[in-house]
Amino acid sequence: MADRPETPLLDSVHVPADMKRLSDPQLKQLAGELRAETISAVSETGGHLGAGLGVIELTVALHAVFDAPKDKIIWDVSHQAYPHKILTGRRDRIRTLRQKDGLSGFTKRSESVYDPFGAAHSSTSISAALGFAVARDLGGQCEGGLGDAIAVIGDGAMSAGMAFEAMNNAGHLKKRLIVILNDNDMSIAPPVGAFSSYLNRLYAEAPFQELKAAAKGAVSLMPPFFQEGAKRAKEMLKGMAIGGTLFEELGFSYIGPLDGHDFDQLLPILRTVKARATGPILIHVMTKKGKGYAPAERANDKGHATAKFDVLTGKQTKAPSNAPSYTNVFGETLVDLAAKDDRICAITAAMPDGTGLQLMAERYPSRCFDVSIAEQHGVTFCAGLAAAGMRPFCAMYSTFLQRGYDQVVHDVAIQNLPVRFAIDRAGLVGADGATHAGSFDIAFMANLPNMVVMAAADEAELKHMVATAAAHDAGPIAFRYPRGEGVGVELPEVGEVLEIGKGRMIREGRRVAILSFGTRLAEVLKACEALEAKGISPSVADARFAKPLDRELILKLAAEHEALITIEEGAVGGFGSHVAQLLADEGVFDGGLKYRSMVLPDSFIDQGAPGEMYDRAGLNSADIETKVLEVLGVAQVKGKRA
Amino acid sequence: MADRPETPLLDSVHVPADMKRLSDPQLKQLAGELRAETISAVSETGGHLGAGLGVIELTVALHAVFDAPKDKIIWDVSHQAYPHKILTGRRDRIRTLRQKDGLSGFTKRSESVYDPFGAAHSSTSISAALGFAVARDLGGQCEGGLGDAIAVIGDGAMSAGMAFEAMNNAGHLKKRLIVILNDNDMSIAPPVGAFSSYLNRLYAEAPFQELKAAAKGAVSLMPPFFQEGAKRAKEMLKGMAIGGTLFEELGFSYIGPLDGHDFDQLLPILRTVKARATGPILIHVMTKKGKGYAPAERANDKGHATAKFDVLTGKQTKAPSNAPSYTNVFGETLVDLAAKDDRICAITAAMPDGTGLQLMAERYPSRCFDVSIAEQHGVTFCAGLAAAGMRPFCAMYSTFLQRGYDQVVHDVAIQNLPVRFAIDRAGLVGADGATHAGSFDIAFMANLPNMVVMAAADEAELKHMVATAAAHDAGPIAFRYPRGEGVGVELPEVGEVLEIGKGRMIREGRRVAILSFGTRLAEVLKACEALEAKGISPSVADARFAKPLDRELILKLAAEHEALITIEEGAVGGFGSHVAQLLADEGVFDGGLKYRSMVLPDSFIDQGAPGEMYDRAGLNSADIETKVLEVLGVAQVKGKRA
Repeated sequence: MADRPETPLLDSVHVPADMKRLSDPQLKQLAGELRAETISAVSETGGHLGAGLGVIELTVALHAVFDAPKDKIIWDVSHQAYPHKILTGRRDRIRTLRQKDGLSGFTKRSESVYDPFGAAHSSTSISAALGFAVARDLGGQCEGGLGDAIAVIGDGAMSAGMAFEAMNNAGHLKKRLIVILNDNDMSIAPPVGAFSSYLNRLYAEAPFQELKAAAKGAVSLMPPFFQEGAKRAKEMLKGMAIGGTLFEELGFSYIGPLDGHDFDQLLPILRTVKARATGPILIHVMTKKGKGYAPAERANDKGHATAKFDVLTGKQTKAPSNAPSYTNVFGETLVDLAAKDDRICAITAAMPDGTGLQLMAERYPSRCFDVSIAEQHGVTFCAGLAAAGMRPFCAMYSTFLQRGYDQVVHDVAIQNLPVRFAIDRAGLVGADGATHAGSFDIAFMANLPNMVVMAAADEAELKHMVATAAAHDAGPIAFRYPRGEGVGVELPEVGEVLEIGKGRMIREGRRVAILSFGTRLAEVLKACEALEAKGISPSVADARFAKPLDRELILKLAAEHEALITIEEGAVGGFGSHVAQLLADEGVFDGGLKYRSMVLPDSFIDQGAPGEMYDRAGLNSADIETKVLEVLGVAQVKGKRA
Repeated sequence: MADRPETPLLDSVHVPADMKRLSDPQLKQLAGELRAETISAVSETGGHLGAGLGVIELTVALHAVFDAPKDKIIWDVSHQAYPHKILTGRRDRIRTLRQKDGLSGFTKRSESVYDPFGAAHSSTSISAALGFAVARDLGGQCEGGLGDAIAVIGDGAMSAGMAFEAMNNAGHLKKRLIVILNDNDMSIAPPVGAFSSYLNRLYAEAPFQELKAAAKGAVSLMPPFFQEGAKRAKEMLKGMAIGGTLFEELGFSYIGPLDGHDFDQLLPILRTVKARATGPILIHVMTKKGKGYAPAERANDKGHATAKFDVLTGKQTKAPSNAPSYTNVFGETLVDLAAKDDRICAITAAMPDGTGLQLMAERYPSRCFDVSIAEQHGVTFCAGLAAAGMRPFCAMYSTFLQRGYDQVVHDVAIQNLPVRFAIDRAGLVGADGATHAGSFDIAFMANLPNMVVMAAADEAELKHMVATAAAHDAGPIAFRYPRGEGVGVELPEVGEVLEIGKGRMIREGRRVAILSFGTRLAEVLKACEALEAKGISPSVADARFAKPLDRELILKLAAEHEALITIEEGAVGGFGSHVAQLLADEGVFDGGLKYRSMVLPDSFIDQGAPGEMYDRAGLNSADIETKVLEVLGVAQVKGKRA
């Protein structure tokens, strides 16, 4: 462990109220200490670094000027909120970030009254803040009281339709509401889209130095008391604006852009806004992701997310990988297929790296589209491409595909258009916790008519499924796979086109059959080893398809065994439910079948290592073993683990 | 039936290509005939009238200038596409609109090559058109060829985040793409939001007469051949623009506003755009919903949707209703509760009438929010209100709630915030067909941890469930109910707060138990009558809750009957799947249980009367009767109907 930094001022700040006695120069010093502490903490835990470093000064300024928890500071996405956590009573646990039973990597209502609204997906903060602002004006009551509502949202997040919807509504309602546009010209990847270009033009048209003078000038002109009424204040604020017409057209007052690392700009502007804002106001703050830590500033992703690292060198200590990640297998397979088929194209919603499409973007840039954080548009854009004869792959994380669900139903499934859904981060995802879990996609995709739904049991299976999806022009098709490394099986040279709706037998046994959908297969096989030692030899099959089901295989398994257990990395309503529906329709339950369906439990599971999370979910090998023993009525071993 | 109008020119137009030989004055005459034919047809079928009448001239002008089906004209929502259907080979079937086996009330790919992309939900057209434009430039191939991509989108639809996302992406990609903003200053209700105000300002700043002159002038200046290159054309187009900076900031050229009923503006502008557009271009067209038919123009909703009517008077011939609609029962119950509880507030996404919130908006305007077509924002806005101590009711149609699904998961369920979801139009909905069916909400809501999911069996039950939801502060709660009239039961003075997770016995019988979730209960009871005549007396229970399940009730029913049948107005993965999971977990299947789950079939069901649709779905009393006989092994009656 590196030496902890010296932080005398920070040591004296336990809650934001402690900052009220600090002078402006002390706030500047506090920011330096906060930056050092943030770097030190993340070097031990890993996590999101760049975003937090970019808002150190903004965090200090917000807490110095506003009065949390009465004033509600709502961090969009909130992976930039580590410094906020340090200042709001959680410094003692900051080195447990993203670990089991530790602090969440995001804001979380159950963690602190200073987190009035949790987040993790982007672009929700303005909607939530508007809710607080409206409730305040209606006399609502909540813990900490209800003062100002402040949304801090990045430029990437602002490009999502949801943020536009919220701005549109806020501009209409005209409540006092503060939106801080934290413009670091980055999503996880550099942002794309016309809106991003617009922000760049605003920036180009307003050199910092001029604005700095303008801000200072405006403040020096300001009377000590609020004498001249709201109208004058509004004019004054408007006078500071350079550009920003787009926001003004939506009913917001616009201030900016400001240098988000300069307290001489941040503090007077925030104080003015606090004293005088009436309606909705947008403060455009320019920040630098990774600011103040050279290794992060130098990195392509500006230190977006990092493993544990050495503070001096920035060198990350990642465990060596044993197998390629599912994400990479998808990306590489897709590029191979695209080389031979120029109808193949791909879209990502601001996640070219995370989805493995970076490779496609490099090799076939004209056929790879980053639509920015815009899942709704992204899905329907794919539907249009498919209607026009292309073979689009819509690559999204399971949890983000929820954003485009109506489009999957209305534009893809109802029209039976052959969009290929590559659903990454299926199942539990580890350190990102419940907000990023891909728990519901089997249920919400497999109940759609026309949809084909596959899950890969390992990385070779994934390769087959990408090929299967590419070849499937009859309608929409989806394949899901988890975060992280494959299991290390040999990868075939080319993927094989699988027969739609056919599973495969993995091992023949007796008495009990386990039908696995997805990567729990490895745990199933581990459980079988332990069971063999107890004289029980289960049959195992890989379903491959949740829809259409392999009717023949399932009925055969049911007929030839006294018990049938399904297992999947998803919530109830998915694969197991489809199997149960089939068994019921076929009358298999009439004469009795020991049927069990192992699914995610009815609770959101906090972050931890994926293995730990599946332990809590009861979907690991020991749980499978227990389930088999239980269903066969074999005397239970003591304790959960054999 | 009223006399059919005289339509000599229209009679000569079978496909849009037939319009190419018409002079501009003839096009004007054609528009008059098309308007008369549209009114005449809808007077016989009922349906969406006002929107189509508003785009008569635009429809004629688009088909006169562009070359469908090669050029892809994509109507957003597409309830305004009846005139388009008449001009594109479907006039002979136009009087079957919205009826069983008739034309769809929306565009539909399977219906015509002139419908390149179907719709019904709003705000998808730009995304789809961009897909066609990109595919065209990548050499994609599809039926009819790939020419221009033209999205026609209303001002209400343009305010949705999805449209912004598409504009943002299109402005970035810079492909030739034509967006026609059909600005009639109406959604179904008058539009709200800052964006709508912005459009009004554009209009106010550009009187038609001036623009008319400008457009004519620009066109008269135009050289006969395309000599001066794209740059000059772009400048010329830009010169016509008055305002429109918001669109220009997003990378679009802006033309308008034009008078959408004036061919002298529409034809030259569209011809110029066709000849010269290079990148994305937005044409802002002002139209009048209901134009040219006085009863529609006079109506508050501008003749949005109508029953059959008398052409001369506009008087609608609606069947008298026997019972209040579920929608009204919800609206009235909510207002009663809101009178006594000032924490109750409500939001609608541009559907104050459709959701029954009009009453709330009248009585308690400060607590009723129309967020415009913005389900994503709407859900999270509710989450913010709930976090701030309010009791928000989020009133949406089942099918539109799909638009806010990620927000339900991420902002409401994970944070366990007490948002009340009033899910209207659950199950099959009738004339609007598959796109509006509420088939998936039980599955996608009930698999969320923390969520309570109810369905009303009749209108009195709905009243109880509104009261139950109002009182439920422990977390999120949802209740679903269908379109249309209740069954005519007596309504209690006040709703009773139900015990969470408890169903109710309806009748005690033997051998078979039917567990109903929702309004199929009436069909179940009808089936029981028929079964009694055959000596079979089923037990019947109303589950009330899909989550949490009434474990005790379900296990009792299973234990005391040889067969258990669940029924719901939803797809697989919902109520029946949760029951099956419970029965499996409890080992009930081990010893045998004749279990059946009646759900919507695995297909999208086209429009018809709701009863007809449920017939096709196999969820009517005769189907229930058959299922009971089948599961009990009683000799089958011949034919489906007894």
